[in-house]
Amino acid sequence: MTSIRDIALKSGLSIATVSRYINASGYVSSEAASRIESVIKAEGYIPNQHAKALFNKASRTIGLVFPSLVNPFFAQMSTILGNAVQAAGFSTILCFTEDRAGQEREALDLLKGYRVEGMVICRAINKTLIDQLNFPVVSFETSISPRVVTVRSDNYRGGRMAFEHLYERGCRRLLHLKGPTAFQATQDRCRGFLDAARDRGLQVDVREAANDYALNQNVPNELANIQFDQYDGLFVFNDINCLTTVNHLQRQGFRIPADIKVVGFDNSYLTQFVEPHLTTIEQPVKDISMACFQHLIRLIGGGTVTENEVVVPVNLIKRDTT
Amino acid sequence: MTSIRDIALKSGLSIATVSRYINASGYVSSEAASRIESVIKAEGYIPNQHAKALFNKASRTIGLVFPSLVNPFFAQMSTILGNAVQAAGFSTILCFTEDRAGQEREALDLLKGYRVEGMVICRAINKTLIDQLNFPVVSFETSISPRVVTVRSDNYRGGRMAFEHLYERGCRRLLHLKGPTAFQATQDRCRGFLDAARDRGLQVDVREAANDYALNQNVPNELANIQFDQYDGLFVFNDINCLTTVNHLQRQGFRIPADIKVVGFDNSYLTQFVEPHLTTIEQPVKDISMACFQHLIRLIGGGTVTENEVVVPVNLIKRDTT
Repeated sequence: MTSIRDIALKSGLSIATVSRYINASGYVSSEAASRIESVIKAEGYIPNQHAKALFNKASRTIGLVFPSLVNPFFAQMSTILGNAVQAAGFSTILCFTEDRAGQEREALDLLKGYRVEGMVICRAINKTLIDQLNFPVVSFETSISPRVVTVRSDNYRGGRMAFEHLYERGCRRLLHLKGPTAFQATQDRCRGFLDAARDRGLQVDVREAANDYALNQNVPNELANIQFDQYDGLFVFNDINCLTTVNHLQRQGFRIPADIKVVGFDNSYLTQFVEPHLTTIEQPVKDISMACFQHLIRLIGGGTVTENEVVVPVNLIKRDTT
Repeated sequence: MTSIRDIALKSGLSIATVSRYINASGYVSSEAASRIESVIKAEGYIPNQHAKALFNKASRTIGLVFPSLVNPFFAQMSTILGNAVQAAGFSTILCFTEDRAGQEREALDLLKGYRVEGMVICRAINKTLIDQLNFPVVSFETSISPRVVTVRSDNYRGGRMAFEHLYERGCRRLLHLKGPTAFQATQDRCRGFLDAARDRGLQVDVREAANDYALNQNVPNELANIQFDQYDGLFVFNDINCLTTVNHLQRQGFRIPADIKVVGFDNSYLTQFVEPHLTTIEQPVKDISMACFQHLIRLIGGGTVTENEVVVPVNLIKRDTT
């Protein structure tokens, strides 16, 4: 591959001059610049990003940390974020945590090693470590500290909306399938649902799912242990689990919405693949992704963010399961 | 952040010695090594990956290039690949092409700039550019050149299997919804389907979808223009489009499988969210992802790959839509 040395040789200039030009790190005469530029074009030279990162002390690299991309909400979010990062001239280092503290720590070390200029992290676990990072961080869902910007949906309000909608539809025997306790977002959804029920003087049942993903082999067993015929309304903490539950109910002979009404959460693209189409609480994935991106870019550019917490409104999307 | 200079100062050794130790680039006495190691631990020093990449001439970075992660097959593949890459001590630079040649070219330039040690690229477009890259490449789906390893499912055979299965189920008026002509994989599926039909002396209809993704707003319009009541069997080029089609049919009052039998392609996790569960041709996403990863790692390690093309067998998964 063509090196900076080759460019210097072919343009008849010193390596120092060529380096100053490529890294925009000092004065180069316009005559020298145009000679270098034409050699670069002819040779198809692409500057070494590692050298640029070292000499400019700016890696132009952003870390994206996700639990996994199996949940379609995260798949959509990573695509929107990745495209925005690319368009802004940064590159993306992608890391997965699988919701494990140890794997997240390794991801953080890796991103530190790359001297990333910023990071968006979803469902973060190691709050103290993240609070100590010396680059800008935007956290999706988990509140880290007053120093770190958090972007999240109004999960509490979403939980309230789910209850109110089921209540208005006449449901009085309600079950909430809640997400794992470790996830702040699904805790907030649960709290909203329970508070709204209490306001109406209604007792509701809660069951906790062990896992976020419908791919978990245990989900069918967990569902088989629930007596769904006790209930006429059901709120499930995210769409992907909700669809698994809806399918389980249909296979048991339940008619939806006649026998039991169902509300999900996310409004991922899955909701309209199923019959009946799923009523759900929408977290607007574009708004969320762009809020994360724009706050991060502002912080990387040295700007300040006045609000430490960005709460994105959610919407009830009424479809056919209620 | 702690620098190599700080480590040298605190361990009472020269920068050159510390650098040799950190980059494993030369002799360091065991006494010096243990002094450096204890300072590194005490200071929480993490080596600069850019410096390591430059001085070791090895970036320990792999590029992953996907059209997008909206298709759940690619979301699953990127998670499996990303985890394998992480576990092998490499980091992942993620790029999206959105199936556009220009965006793919930018991604290739970015990866060249990072001096990645290898790349897995899905549904590649710029074959000549990719053939000229000076690092190992594994291409998923697109055949690049005899020099570049391609991993793909046996799409042709999958197309044949889809036809044979529908034929055995008694379907004689068949429609194939094929993928965009630009995608080699869906072309092969179509060819297999048509060849199998010809072998049975049957004429089948073919309609081409403009886009790979069900999120495309035009899909419902495209479907509305098809007279599905002419057909008793349908093969759709991938699951995500197949589910959109199945839902369209159900909304039109078609009973599946009584009125029309349907086969998809991928066996993504979506197939079991819908009622009836989707009969599909499985491309084993784990096998495919690990074949890509293992071939790439072998090539990066200086090994050779005797087979230029790795064809992963597909399987008919019979469910309820046939």
